[in-house]
Amino acid sequence: MTLRTSGLPTDVDNRSRPRDAELRVRARAVIPGGMYGHLNMNALPSEYPQFFASGRGARVVDVDGREFVDLMCSWGPVLLGHQHPEVEEAAARQAALGDCLDGPSERMVELAERLVAVVAHADWAMLQKNGTDATTLCCTIARAATGKRKILVAKGAYHGAAPWCTPVETGTTSEDRANLVRYTYNDLESVRAAFSDDVAAILVSPFRHDAGFDQELVDPAFARGLRELCDASGAALILDDVRCGMRLHFGGSWETIGVAPDLSAWSKAIANGHPLAAVLGNDRFRDAAASLFTTGSFWFSSVPMAASLATLTVLQRDDAVGRMVAMGDALRTGLAEQSERWGIEVLQTGPSQMPYMSFVGDVDKAMANRFAASALRRGLYLHPRHNWFISAALTDADLELALSATDAAFSELRAAD
Amino acid sequence: MTLRTSGLPTDVDNRSRPRDAELRVRARAVIPGGMYGHLNMNALPSEYPQFFASGRGARVVDVDGREFVDLMCSWGPVLLGHQHPEVEEAAARQAALGDCLDGPSERMVELAERLVAVVAHADWAMLQKNGTDATTLCCTIARAATGKRKILVAKGAYHGAAPWCTPVETGTTSEDRANLVRYTYNDLESVRAAFSDDVAAILVSPFRHDAGFDQELVDPAFARGLRELCDASGAALILDDVRCGMRLHFGGSWETIGVAPDLSAWSKAIANGHPLAAVLGNDRFRDAAASLFTTGSFWFSSVPMAASLATLTVLQRDDAVGRMVAMGDALRTGLAEQSERWGIEVLQTGPSQMPYMSFVGDVDKAMANRFAASALRRGLYLHPRHNWFISAALTDADLELALSATDAAFSELRAAD
Repeated sequence: MTLRTSGLPTDVDNRSRPRDAELRVRARAVIPGGMYGHLNMNALPSEYPQFFASGRGARVVDVDGREFVDLMCSWGPVLLGHQHPEVEEAAARQAALGDCLDGPSERMVELAERLVAVVAHADWAMLQKNGTDATTLCCTIARAATGKRKILVAKGAYHGAAPWCTPVETGTTSEDRANLVRYTYNDLESVRAAFSDDVAAILVSPFRHDAGFDQELVDPAFARGLRELCDASGAALILDDVRCGMRLHFGGSWETIGVAPDLSAWSKAIANGHPLAAVLGNDRFRDAAASLFTTGSFWFSSVPMAASLATLTVLQRDDAVGRMVAMGDALRTGLAEQSERWGIEVLQTGPSQMPYMSFVGDVDKAMANRFAASALRRGLYLHPRHNWFISAALTDADLELALSATDAAFSELRAAD
Repeated sequence: MTLRTSGLPTDVDNRSRPRDAELRVRARAVIPGGMYGHLNMNALPSEYPQFFASGRGARVVDVDGREFVDLMCSWGPVLLGHQHPEVEEAAARQAALGDCLDGPSERMVELAERLVAVVAHADWAMLQKNGTDATTLCCTIARAATGKRKILVAKGAYHGAAPWCTPVETGTTSEDRANLVRYTYNDLESVRAAFSDDVAAILVSPFRHDAGFDQELVDPAFARGLRELCDASGAALILDDVRCGMRLHFGGSWETIGVAPDLSAWSKAIANGHPLAAVLGNDRFRDAAASLFTTGSFWFSSVPMAASLATLTVLQRDDAVGRMVAMGDALRTGLAEQSERWGIEVLQTGPSQMPYMSFVGDVDKAMANRFAASALRRGLYLHPRHNWFISAALTDADLELALSATDAAFSELRAAD
């Protein structure tokens, strides 16, 4: 009950952003550390707002009224743009009927049917709330089906924030991770070395998107090798499509390379910001999926399902993936030209829709931080150490503003030399 | 991609409820087992609908248009009634601004402040999506603070559906539960026997509400004993208020007996059906809570927070808890009178707002199933083997209909003797 107030964090400029500064002080009194998780801005440059007021299309507005072109898209969930009218209308229409009832509505069946129709490897679907719910459930299903315990995971890969997978081990036990065995992404030999008779599944991301590192696309031969290992052993191939799903491809992210997982985990973008996650699986794992007990108070709520149905409709009809690729490519081309012109060497990695740019030799990320802060002051919201996300709402005007901000940011980096 | 269709489940009467029957068939093709989790109706009498169309106040309507007085309240989330106008208006107002943005909105600070103000033991708050997120996080915080591993849990208690706590062990590993030690609810000696130097926390529910069993209120001396054990050892006392929170008391559920937990887990009713969970803690555990990494894609979304703020306002202003107690008592009195009149011996247990009724000698729950099915046919939705939930929206007319349905159900039980 004690309301503890603490001093204003020294890194916050409270003259120009009084609302964010005030909220940070109030937050520090009632939220441990002032904020937590991936949206904790305490480790970012002081220009970054912690609190936002609104979003529309490809723009977000912070609590002090600063508007930004949004290249983070809420770290993935926003695919068609903030508050996409057709998605919000579908959500509101369902909300007027009911959301969390004594059972699911027919939206659940419609959405499971749609996901099975859209994702090539899927014969069935189960819905949850968090990406972590989905990755965890995939592992449980794989263990139920195989009777084995070990899950092979790539070193440094992020698969959620439950005790078994959180990247920070504080408060977890060694038992939580006792059944994980690590391999190196894109290194099939390391997977073979990690293999044993007790492997229930190989868990893998569509590409290597570890925060703080340059991104690495999947080697199709690696993906095929995983499939072969699973086919030979009976282990499940689990694709963690939580971050990439429906942004890289209208369907599963490895459909473009022709490798079908047995189980896949989805969340983030599948309902354009509404809280939903999904596990999709093939018939080999259907009975195992039916044999276990998993649930959540809001897993059967209809509003996010209605939002997801509308999201999938718009995504397909408008070729939103194609739009994101085109805009991501244009951004990348512009950044390459600016890098060249300003004589500042960068590395651009990852797919067009989830680009990442690092500065060559910037070991401590000081350049990345200055660049991002500079861009932010000019109205562009991106992250210095995490991949960005392009939404289909990004317009030519947004892109122009974005590239104008990055041009100024390059110029400031140059001037600071 | 294969759409597997299977025959109509034999226990479903598809003449009178064609829509539910059709949806069940479609669901079996694309959802393992046709449904999963606590809202899977496959094990209930055939009268139970699997799919719902809408809800308003204390009434729900299934997909075939049957309306029921709702005594399950979506298994807890619905506290003020389905679609409470002030809650839905607050949610819609926030949705028009933004929900899932690049950071939280000021709603998060307001809600953390409100929860800290309302719940006596709380100095801070962290928000999540699932009740399981909250119970899991409480354990992680306790371990981070104490450097110890063991969590003491009551035999048969439900604390969520993650691998460490799901009541069905299929697909989990022994390592997932390696750090749980069991005690017997209300038996302090059993807790002492379970204790060791490695105990991070005692996890306990406000009362014993194990599904399928008569409910048992907490013995205040037991609760005080847990508090003393934790004070003496430095372990955290964690109250799992997910199912009871804000329904038993406007504040923490053990405030009425004067026992303060260190950490408490909340979800279900705190946003009247909108997806939200919370961990509340005292200052002794603040630094530990700030030291770990936990997050979720939708944990910072503002719409459920706006809904929760409105829920708490209405709850307090309208003395909703008092209303639920009064209606629960009236229901209980009516059931007692009917039981007496029909000469069918029942046991009514649990708090007024979360009543449970069992039939004496009904070991296989056959009477409970027949009673519940009978009531359902007359427009009352309750569960034969799980505690019920009263909402503040229950009117005198709803209660009259409910008691008329139970009277007929008693009569049918009597006639079947």
